[in-house]
Amino acid sequence: MSERKEEEGSVSLEVLRMKMAEFSKERNWDRFHSPRNLLLALVGEVGELSEIFQWKGEVPKGLPEWEEEEKKHLGEELSDVLLYLVRLSDICGIDLAKAALRKLELNAIKYPLSNSNN
Amino acid sequence: MSERKEEEGSVSLEVLRMKMAEFSKERNWDRFHSPRNLLLALVGEVGELSEIFQWKGEVPKGLPEWEEEEKKHLGEELSDVLLYLVRLSDICGIDLAKAALRKLELNAIKYPLSNSNN
Amino acid sequence: MSERKEEEGSVSLEVLRMKMAEFSKERNWDRFHSPRNLLLALVGEVGELSEIFQWKGEVPKGLPEWEEEEKKHLGEELSDVLLYLVRLSDICGIDLAKAALRKLELNAIKYPLSNSNN
Amino acid sequence: MSERKEEEGSVSLEVLRMKMAEFSKERNWDRFHSPRNLLLALVGEVGELSEIFQWKGEVPKGLPEWEEEEKKHLGEELSDVLLYLVRLSDICGIDLAKAALRKLELNAIKYPLSNSNN
Repeated sequence: MSERKEEEGSVSLEVLRMKMAEFSKERNWDRFHSPRNLLLALVGEVGELSEIFQWKGEVPKGLPEWEEEEKKHLGEELSDVLLYLVRLSDICGIDLAKAALRKLELNAIKYPLSNSNN
Repeated sequence: MSERKEEEGSVSLEVLRMKMAEFSKERNWDRFHSPRNLLLALVGEVGELSEIFQWKGEVPKGLPEWEEEEKKHLGEELSDVLLYLVRLSDICGIDLAKAALRKLELNAIKYPLSNSNN
Repeated sequence: MSERKEEEGSVSLEVLRMKMAEFSKERNWDRFHSPRNLLLALVGEVGELSEIFQWKGEVPKGLPEWEEEEKKHLGEELSDVLLYLVRLSDICGIDLAKAALRKLELNAIKYPLSNSNN
Repeated sequence: MSERKEEEGSVSLEVLRMKMAEFSKERNWDRFHSPRNLLLALVGEVGELSEIFQWKGEVPKGLPEWEEEEKKHLGEELSDVLLYLVRLSDICGIDLAKAALRKLELNAIKYPLSNSNN
């Protein structure tokens, strides 16, 4: 149990990348995983994510009034987007972890602290 | 240098979540980060990601003919999607790392090895 | 029958707008049709449209190898995007027909004939 | 002037389809207009549409507090989605007007009047 907990606490993008690559290879799906196929699959999952929110009007942070089942469904759709994003990056030869850290640095330069407190 | 390399190698979703939360708080942006605002921002970034691929026809894995500058741009758009996804999950109270591991398990059950090698 | 054919040949955006408004009103759905609800519904339909194309690799114009059933499904998803787009425009108070004609004029200025034959 | 007004009032999908086809042909763009290229361009425009709404929270019908310039921008993005949708349908060999009328009929069957007033 503590092992599982620790594993979850430190889930890295690299672990997800390896799991997705292994999953695809074992099922002989690599032939389907071209960049644009994966991109369209990602768009499909973003659509499913949007459908969860579409008729709700604005919803408060933490989703206090959502049923547990609905939150579980939301977690699944968020995960689908993540997993295709990780796989798309891998297939494109992009180091997503490195790119994300670099983007955070670029954002910090683009939005310096002193100018953005308005 | 080795420290930086190590950091990149083990970038966890939790690290990104914390960095995004800190970034937003420092800039007084928490008031803008409602679930549906973040979702629409995510859709906007998926649009920018799609624009990179839109007139290219099919592209091979690894993007062998892309300029370095274009790959850098791609890494930025992939990162923007990731960072908003991490932030959206956090604001919704969803543990994205836990949800992603669970989804991988569900996928393994949905697509067992013996039936999918077709 | 000829009446039906004529109707189809001249389907205007205004006709679709009125039909959607009537459909919603009759079902007491106007309360759900806020701008952002409709926008997210549109994104959901674009996701479903993308799913049709996601594992196919590049497909030639006219979709010569698609089954009739698949083309019918495609027509439905294209229509869902259109109908939500028409409804979103209406709810936002935008005259979509007027805006589209204006955009065509702007595009003709942005991409003049002499410079774009490359 | 009255001619222009009349033209706008009856903008049909067929007129938009022909204008887009002519526009593309004149610029030698037909070679870029494959189904999946157009689909990704559509996704890009939906992203730009979403960006207009992303930090606003819920907005009321009619957008009463929006500046004229912002509404004009919205009209352009709505039009971009429409024009790519019309073009995508044409390139796929789908009669969008016919499909939309058929979809309205299917929706009326799926959501009959007596059951949906809840």
